Amino acid sequence: MSGEQELGITESKEHSPGEWYAEVVQKAGLADYAPMGGFIVTRPRGYAIWERIQNNLDGWFKNTGVQNAYFPLFIPESYLEKEKDVVEGFDPEVAWVTHGGHDELEERLAVRPTSESIIAPFMAQWTRSHRDLPMRLNQWCSVVRWEATETKPFFRTKEFLWQEGHTAHADEDGAWEETMTRLDQYARLYEEVMAMPPLKGRKPPHDKFPGAHTTTTIETLMPDGKTVQAATSHYLGTSFGEAFDITYADADEEENTAHTTSWGLSWRAMGALIMTHSDDQGLVLPPALAPDQVVVVPIWQEDNKDEVIDYAADLAAELDEDGVRVELDDREHRNPGFKYNEHELHGVPLRVEIGPHEVEDGEATLVHRPDGETETVDRDGIADTVTDHLDTVHAKLYADAEETLEGEIREAESREEILGTIGQHGGYVKCGWCGDEDCEEPIKDAIAAEIVMVPLDRDEEPIHDDCAICGEDAEETAYFAKSY
Amino acid sequence: MSGEQELGITESKEHSPGEWYAEVVQKAGLADYAPMGGFIVTRPRGYAIWERIQNNLDGWFKNTGVQNAYFPLFIPESYLEKEKDVVEGFDPEVAWVTHGGHDELEERLAVRPTSESIIAPFMAQWTRSHRDLPMRLNQWCSVVRWEATETKPFFRTKEFLWQEGHTAHADEDGAWEETMTRLDQYARLYEEVMAMPPLKGRKPPHDKFPGAHTTTTIETLMPDGKTVQAATSHYLGTSFGEAFDITYADADEEENTAHTTSWGLSWRAMGALIMTHSDDQGLVLPPALAPDQVVVVPIWQEDNKDEVIDYAADLAAELDEDGVRVELDDREHRNPGFKYNEHELHGVPLRVEIGPHEVEDGEATLVHRPDGETETVDRDGIADTVTDHLDTVHAKLYADAEETLEGEIREAESREEILGTIGQHGGYVKCGWCGDEDCEEPIKDAIAAEIVMVPLDRDEEPIHDDCAICGEDAEETAYFAKSY
Repeated sequence: MSGEQELGITESKEHSPGEWYAEVVQKAGLADYAPMGGFIVTRPRGYAIWERIQNNLDGWFKNTGVQNAYFPLFIPESYLEKEKDVVEGFDPEVAWVTHGGHDELEERLAVRPTSESIIAPFMAQWTRSHRDLPMRLNQWCSVVRWEATETKPFFRTKEFLWQEGHTAHADEDGAWEETMTRLDQYARLYEEVMAMPPLKGRKPPHDKFPGAHTTTTIETLMPDGKTVQAATSHYLGTSFGEAFDITYADADEEENTAHTTSWGLSWRAMGALIMTHSDDQGLVLPPALAPDQVVVVPIWQEDNKDEVIDYAADLAAELDEDGVRVELDDREHRNPGFKYNEHELHGVPLRVEIGPHEVEDGEATLVHRPDGETETVDRDGIADTVTDHLDTVHAKLYADAEETLEGEIREAESREEILGTIGQHGGYVKCGWCGDEDCEEPIKDAIAAEIVMVPLDRDEEPIHDDCAICGEDAEETAYFAKSY
Repeated sequence: MSGEQELGITESKEHSPGEWYAEVVQKAGLADYAPMGGFIVTRPRGYAIWERIQNNLDGWFKNTGVQNAYFPLFIPESYLEKEKDVVEGFDPEVAWVTHGGHDELEERLAVRPTSESIIAPFMAQWTRSHRDLPMRLNQWCSVVRWEATETKPFFRTKEFLWQEGHTAHADEDGAWEETMTRLDQYARLYEEVMAMPPLKGRKPPHDKFPGAHTTTTIETLMPDGKTVQAATSHYLGTSFGEAFDITYADADEEENTAHTTSWGLSWRAMGALIMTHSDDQGLVLPPALAPDQVVVVPIWQEDNKDEVIDYAADLAAELDEDGVRVELDDREHRNPGFKYNEHELHGVPLRVEIGPHEVEDGEATLVHRPDGETETVDRDGIADTVTDHLDTVHAKLYADAEETLEGEIREAESREEILGTIGQHGGYVKCGWCGDEDCEEPIKDAIAAEIVMVPLDRDEEPIHDDCAICGEDAEETAYFAKSY
């Protein structure tokens, strides 16, 4: 049983969250480190979670008028340069292809860091009349940003998987509505699928996407008190429309410039998911994302082996027929204790234990991940019962995360209070802000916390009259936090 | 109605198949040319076809033990060099990343041309015991091969979308069975989904995948008499197992080298699909792949407009509820003739025409794409009727392609006969072959035809006793053809 030792998570989520996270990712079989720094290999157990995230979002996108497409992996340098904010924003982070085979290329090609610059010219070509709008495109792909920081699987990798949506609209109203539709769908993903409470907000002007009019964000709080930008939706105004000539003839045959948006969610969502719910026993997954939602473990002695296994297999088959993702673990060379540990490590939300007592009484024993709550239930109607329990597991995970979040939004009225509160507790600190980027600097310099969002509604009154840093009139409420 | 002119395909499939193909791809909205030679943009109508190919294959893969994963886009040069045949095979075709941001990389990185070299080392790491085998991984991704030929969308592009499966097995039998399972699934895709008759065979030894023991192939015949390698499945023997140390402890704790396979299908399948079925009116799609399977076109005058449109909408709703992918085309600013042309261009398999007569008689008129066969049917039970007609359309497309194929496999007994037959008719020419690559040369030099396959079964007797080229004893039957 040499394997048993390998199963255990040795690091503590509370005391060494970074090491704990890396250990969970590797031991639960989600990802491994690639030979090149900054790159990871996503293993089947990890990729299956990403596929379920994809399937949920993709369905919602398609139901709201989005069509998938695929644009080239490479972008000519001259295209990246057409929108000056974009080239300034991404230039230091681009991986460059300079050679094809044995020959040097005439123009070097950027491995896409994001695809506005290659998609916009085609939108321009395809947009003739107001009847062609709105145009809503999305692609699922990988992008590369050459950031020289320590690799943290899913959170910080030079290549990452994501979707990027790009849309064009006749006017600001249409584009702004689009921006909010996608932000709401991301929020829904976090709530309904990932069991995580999202905060919706805007990035401050100095932290917008290059070229954007407005960058909206989903922020989620991690247990260590840092925030994660968990999805983003940009209203780009007419800057890309102008730079790339995306114009259309309106009903009166007048030429107008289209308003565009872009919006994306990356596998960083998986990082936030793992970090939020998992524990010192390993991975914890909400049922909507778990590759196996239920594992049925028969516990037999030699004299009742066949009937216990048959009963368990029959129960598993019934769950399977009902659409539950279920595995029967009847391995001979592993004992029940080993199996429990392994399935906890892998984040299976519900364990069904079947021993001779359950067989005799026509019952089944259900054990919830992560809190170990145990209930013995009737074998009859097991599919409905299991579905209810899976819903309960989701609700518990969400309630836990929500409780944490609610306690972690605090207020401050001075620079010292911001520094002290974040320094002591982490989490978000709300305060009045004059709108000047300079007022972020002292906080950033002292404790590496920044303004991670301001309220979505531009007309919302600031919580305090004065900027907590400079004392001038406050323009809006700033949320300071450390972030991933 | 300036649009009507743009709709028409001006080139002829028979007389200028290359130009015709390019025109269909662009006018049907499948793809556009990217600014960099060799790259294309896959538009929503094209990508939707690829998604359906993916969904079919992916389901079959998962039902037969395959798990999806994701490996890095880049492969360090030193990894590519570990299997010498691979580096020799791909070296001239690799796109190289040399710079990250403003810095030159210490080791340049290949944009993956295929991923054996980055997947094998991880298989080695994950394979400890015979219990870890078989290990079956697949990824859907894009790969880049820097070939300097003219761009032909889906057929020949520097970047292309594909799936690549990679598996490890305890022994040759397991790996060979895997190779054939995937080849059979590809054949099934062509038959059941794409309505194309596939030929299954082996590539001759001099045309195997670099490092492979055996390369099997699906060949499909194009209407212009050329063949397309439409999918491939390789038994790699132990060459990758040895180069990358993929070993496992068997039941007796003895270390053994794993046998591996790889198999792939690219968007070239879409090229073959378009080329096979489409015609001078535009795209023709089998119902299983068509984004819209049915279009309902109401034909009204002012005095019956509401009842015709209501009847048509009701019928479309019933089809939709039954799971048929249906569009109601009630656009006001287009007349029925324009709509017919447009839906033919886009390859909608079945058109349902609803005029006042159909309303009065409780009927519907169905028109098949591509042969225009028309039948007026009862409105009652329309969903079943339409499903039957869609099956008929698939069957017609398959039968047409099969009839073409059957007439295009000929025999030859001499070099002159091979040259004359392919020169005159195209298609496949079967002949006896000694097994020497040199005997392919004169045919290749004269008419650019090559041995595109030999029979799967190594023990099959050659059709003739002598090699058609050199006259020595024939070892097997060679299939000569020109190819894409």
